[in-house]
Amino acid sequence: MRAEEIIATHPDVQGKVAQNLIAAIAECLSCAQVCTSCADACLAEDHMERMRQCIRLCLDCADVCVATGLTATRRTGSNEALIAEMLAVCATACRLCGDECARHATMHEHCRICAEACLACAQACQRAIGDVGGGPSDAVGDEGPLGDNADAPV
Amino acid sequence: MRAEEIIATHPDVQGKVAQNLIAAIAECLSCAQVCTSCADACLAEDHMERMRQCIRLCLDCADVCVATGLTATRRTGSNEALIAEMLAVCATACRLCGDECARHATMHEHCRICAEACLACAQACQRAIGDVGGGPSDAVGDEGPLGDNADAPV
Amino acid sequence: MRAEEIIATHPDVQGKVAQNLIAAIAECLSCAQVCTSCADACLAEDHMERMRQCIRLCLDCADVCVATGLTATRRTGSNEALIAEMLAVCATACRLCGDECARHATMHEHCRICAEACLACAQACQRAIGDVGGGPSDAVGDEGPLGDNADAPV
Amino acid sequence: MRAEEIIATHPDVQGKVAQNLIAAIAECLSCAQVCTSCADACLAEDHMERMRQCIRLCLDCADVCVATGLTATRRTGSNEALIAEMLAVCATACRLCGDECARHATMHEHCRICAEACLACAQACQRAIGDVGGGPSDAVGDEGPLGDNADAPV
Repeated sequence: MRAEEIIATHPDVQGKVAQNLIAAIAECLSCAQVCTSCADACLAEDHMERMRQCIRLCLDCADVCVATGLTATRRTGSNEALIAEMLAVCATACRLCGDECARHATMHEHCRICAEACLACAQACQRAIGDVGGGPSDAVGDEGPLGDNADAPV
Repeated sequence: MRAEEIIATHPDVQGKVAQNLIAAIAECLSCAQVCTSCADACLAEDHMERMRQCIRLCLDCADVCVATGLTATRRTGSNEALIAEMLAVCATACRLCGDECARHATMHEHCRICAEACLACAQACQRAIGDVGGGPSDAVGDEGPLGDNADAPV
Repeated sequence: MRAEEIIATHPDVQGKVAQNLIAAIAECLSCAQVCTSCADACLAEDHMERMRQCIRLCLDCADVCVATGLTATRRTGSNEALIAEMLAVCATACRLCGDECARHATMHEHCRICAEACLACAQACQRAIGDVGGGPSDAVGDEGPLGDNADAPV
Repeated sequence: MRAEEIIATHPDVQGKVAQNLIAAIAECLSCAQVCTSCADACLAEDHMERMRQCIRLCLDCADVCVATGLTATRRTGSNEALIAEMLAVCATACRLCGDECARHATMHEHCRICAEACLACAQACQRAIGDVGGGPSDAVGDEGPLGDNADAPV
């Protein structure tokens, strides 16, 4: 992941990266891949009928993680309210999926790994909420929505 | 959109579709396309530097709408808590994007259309939250997470 | 779907929409929803172990359809080569998924609907390739990659 | 990224992971994040009107990379033809985006990083095509589409 490297070069960030947000972005994209893989592995298990809820939660979690990782990546303008809400819902998705995977962890190694990835992602999202909503951070654009965005009369 | 037609045939739904949820799914996918198109059209405008915040909110809204439309589509097992949270965050994304687009609506026809799509999607998501969290609806699986999902000792 | 309405207002399109491309965009987003729904319904069937390949192809098809629908939506600058390739790979994904779903169509109504949606999307993508690669169409930006995009020496 | 760790535990893979495919999956998800970030950073540049084509190619590339990374992750059943086509179109998307970013690399550090990520991803996808289409690899399911997927008469 080059997330920190590239975000540090953003004109509105200029090196002052929000470490917790960067960590959450990387965990989200990794968790999306892991959940996609776990859903797929569950589908190949002998007793796949026991894995229905697990597959479903993994697919939901993957969708939410992709959307969270990409929206949290953007720094131009400002959308802190949305990013904070997305991080919170992503933490929910990860906890629900991680709890279900944890129930199958002794039977299926992929569920054990997925439970770990979900827990790590939930914690990273939770920590990143402070970066977004809090004081001066790279997620808080200097110009924000009051910048040069309006079609001011010429 | 064949959303209602196909969801009605789901083994756990059997015709009792949640109309508000179906409407929200269709609006989410349409809004994702409209926001992607509006961001792209803003990018082609002469004074695109005034459209930075609009482009950014459109891209965020598109990401959230895709994830919401797909998670809200699933009926196997249960994940009502997550769907309700996603519908709420999607309503937020649409309101923020729609408000910004509305500011440019007299200048740019694509922003006027996008503001309308965002408003329609925000309202549809808000209405659908009742379908999900409320009483008997197709989103509430009969078996739920207490079903045959656990690796019970054989 | 407001795809035609909003694309018609794009500064580089100005009303001259490529009808086949618009149709493909709408089919792609609809097919993504249908495939997500069919995979989920297959997962709830009694003999879900027979539906493994169907679920897998539906999930793949949904991913490809979303990406195709969104890239095909953009008109600023130019990326005809990529759009044509994506339309072709999307037609492949839809044919593979549609053929598999067709095998289950008499047993499962959701597979019958999904097979129809996949066939319609495959045909729409195939037809749209001509719009993209061909002569003057809205997908062929006037300025293209030789436009004002380069960081010319000041 | 836990891509290798989790794919190695898949019932149909059992440790025999296709190294090139794993590498491509990780590059795809990283490249999706980098392209999303580069598009966003371009949008914040002073002379953003010169970055139109770059932003557009970055957004297209991000969409294709996400879809490729997720479809290439799946191992249940078989879909080699589609994965090989997706890897090829992803290599195209990355080359087009990387070439455009390379033109701005001396002016914008984020474009330099994005060009590197795109080149790495294009090469990884190209190498992975051999893993998929070739002989015995984890992408070639043992049961394949001829497995227990059909609704055989009972």
